Amino acid sequence: MSAKKYLVLAEGNSGDAHYGKTMRGIVDYAPDPVVAILDSMRAGESYREVPIVGSVEEALPLGPTVAAVGVATQGGRFPPAWRELLKACIRAGLDVESGLHEFITEDPELVELAQRHGVELRDLRKPPDDLSVPTGENLRVPAKIVLTVGSDCAIGKKTVAVELDRAARARGLRSVFVPTGQTGIAIAGWGIAVDAVISDFLAGAAERLVVEGAARGGELLWVEGQGSLAHPAYSGVTMGLMHGSAPHAYVLVHRAGATHVEGYPDHPLPTLRELIELHERASLRLRPARVAAVALHTGSLDEAAARAAIHAVEDETGLPTGDPVRLGAERLLDAVLDRVAE
Amino acid sequence: MSAKKYLVLAEGNSGDAHYGKTMRGIVDYAPDPVVAILDSMRAGESYREVPIVGSVEEALPLGPTVAAVGVATQGGRFPPAWRELLKACIRAGLDVESGLHEFITEDPELVELAQRHGVELRDLRKPPDDLSVPTGENLRVPAKIVLTVGSDCAIGKKTVAVELDRAARARGLRSVFVPTGQTGIAIAGWGIAVDAVISDFLAGAAERLVVEGAARGGELLWVEGQGSLAHPAYSGVTMGLMHGSAPHAYVLVHRAGATHVEGYPDHPLPTLRELIELHERASLRLRPARVAAVALHTGSLDEAAARAAIHAVEDETGLPTGDPVRLGAERLLDAVLDRVAE
Repeated sequence: MSAKKYLVLAEGNSGDAHYGKTMRGIVDYAPDPVVAILDSMRAGESYREVPIVGSVEEALPLGPTVAAVGVATQGGRFPPAWRELLKACIRAGLDVESGLHEFITEDPELVELAQRHGVELRDLRKPPDDLSVPTGENLRVPAKIVLTVGSDCAIGKKTVAVELDRAARARGLRSVFVPTGQTGIAIAGWGIAVDAVISDFLAGAAERLVVEGAARGGELLWVEGQGSLAHPAYSGVTMGLMHGSAPHAYVLVHRAGATHVEGYPDHPLPTLRELIELHERASLRLRPARVAAVALHTGSLDEAAARAAIHAVEDETGLPTGDPVRLGAERLLDAVLDRVAE
Repeated sequence: MSAKKYLVLAEGNSGDAHYGKTMRGIVDYAPDPVVAILDSMRAGESYREVPIVGSVEEALPLGPTVAAVGVATQGGRFPPAWRELLKACIRAGLDVESGLHEFITEDPELVELAQRHGVELRDLRKPPDDLSVPTGENLRVPAKIVLTVGSDCAIGKKTVAVELDRAARARGLRSVFVPTGQTGIAIAGWGIAVDAVISDFLAGAAERLVVEGAARGGELLWVEGQGSLAHPAYSGVTMGLMHGSAPHAYVLVHRAGATHVEGYPDHPLPTLRELIELHERASLRLRPARVAAVALHTGSLDEAAARAAIHAVEDETGLPTGDPVRLGAERLLDAVLDRVAE
C-alpha cells in the first residue's frame, strides 16, 4: 500500500484555535503529508500551504488515503451533520481516523459501510481494555520525565512537548515524545488518550505511557500535558496525569495575556506564581517536581510585544521563559536539562 | 415482591477495612436488612450481629433476595474464584448487585444464566451513557455543598458524609447525602460512581450529582469524597470531584496516626496542614472553599487515646476535630454550618 496521505476533516472549525487544534497538530507535526483540509466555510483558502476544500469529492484528485477527524468537540461527540461527511469519506474509499469520544468503530451503520467499501475505521481515543491502577513502575522508569502543564486547554502543551523533543533529538539526546491525547497519537502513531480512560485507571494509563516511552529508547521523555489544574472541567485529567507519569520536572505553558479560562468567561485564572506553587505542592511526595521553565504562547502578539511579554513573565516567575514555536526551544531545553540533572 | 434482603458477598475480605469496605457500608447504613455475610474464611463468626456464612447454600434459609458484591478489588476486577460464587447466587435465584469495574451485565455467561433463572443483574458502577463536561450549573445549585476529602482512600469519607447528613436531618435541616461510589449508591439507591466515568466527564458527572441532590430537596448536600489529592493512583478522581461538585466547604478525613498511603508504603502522607492548604489552593477560583473541620478515624485507638489524638489534631490544624462515628457528629456539623453560613 502507498504511504498515508491525509484529508483532514475540519468542517466549520479550520479557523478555530481550540476546536481545530487536531487539524493543526496533524498538519504541523504528523510525519505523513496532508493533501487537503475539508472546511466548506473556508474552501479556496489554505493553511500552511495545504489547500482547504469544500467537499470530499473536491479532495479526491489530490490522492488522500485517510480521512482524519481534525476537530475536537465539547464532550467529544459528533455533530449530526458529521455523519454524512464520514459516510462520504467511506464511500470514497478512505480509511477514517477519529479521536472523538464517540467511537466510530462501535457505530453499526459506519462499520457496515466500511466493510462494504473495504476501508478501515480507527478510534485513536479508544483506550486499551486491560488498564488498571499504577504499580509503582512509573517511579522506576530509567528516564528523566518532563510533563507539560498549563493554565488552560488548547494553549500548546502538546506543541511545546513536541518542539522540546525535536530540539533534544537534534542535540543527539535519546528523547521521546509521549502522546496522551488524540492529536499526539495521530502525530506519533502510539499512545493512550488519557481523557478517555475511566477515572480510576487514569494514573495507571499515564504510568504505562512513560514505561513505554522508556521502552522505546527514551532517556528523556516529554509527556504531552492535558487540561489544567485550574480548569473547571478537565482538572481531574491533569491531576491523574501528574501523578501517574511521575515527572521530574514541569514546563508550564501559558497564553500571553490570558486572564480567564477559555470558554468559561466567569472563571478567572490563578496568577502564574500561584499555578507554579500549586503544581509543585500537588506533586507526589515521593517524586517532588519543580517547574523548570515557562513556555509562553505569543501567537497573537507582534514580535516586539512577544519579547516584552516573555520578559514580563520571566520577571514575574523568576523562571526561564520563551516561546519555543516562535523563537526556538533551546533556552527552555537548557533550563529543563539543568533542572533534571539536579 | 417482598422487601430487599441482602446476602453480602465478602469472600476472603470480611475482616479487611479496605477491601471489605463495601460490605461494611451496606451492613452499617443500607436501609434494607442484611441477613448474612458470605466469607468462608470466617464462617461462624458475625459482624454487627449479622451471621457470617461459608456458602450460598448456608445463607438461603435466612431468606436473602439479593446478593451484593461486598468487596472492592484493586483495579475493580473479579478474582477468578468469584465467578463460581456469582453463578451459585444466580442459580439460587438471587438478584446480583456489583460495584466493580468489570460489569456483570456485560458478561455473556452470567447474563445467560440470569435469564435462565429469572434474576436481575445490576452494575452499580455503570455510568449513565449521556454524560459530558460540566455546564456551569454546579455553581448555580440552590444548596450549600460540602465535600468530604481526605488523606487516603478507605478511611471513612463516605461514612463521615452519611453521619453528618443524618445529624443534619435530625436537626430538621433539608439535608441530602450525595453518593459518588459503589457503596454510597448501594446505601442511597441513586448516584454515579465517578471513578468509573471517563476522565473527561468526571467533573460533569459530579456536577450532575449535586444538581440531582438539590432536585431531591437538598438545601445542604453532603458529597461523598473519593480518593485523595495525595494518593498516587486516585488523585485525579479527587480533583475532578472537587471541581465538578463545586463545594462551599470541605471536611477533611484522616486516620489517626497514619503516616503513609495505605498499600503504598513508599509514599509518605503530607502533613494535615499541607493537605488543608493544598485543597484550599486547588479549589475553583470562582468557588473558593475552606476546610471547615477534621473528621478523625480513631477506630484503632482506645477512648482515651482517641480523645488525645483529636486534641492533637485540633492543635495542629486549628480546626474543630472529632470522630463522628465514635463520638457523634454534632461538633463537626456546627463547624460546617458556621462555615457555609459565612
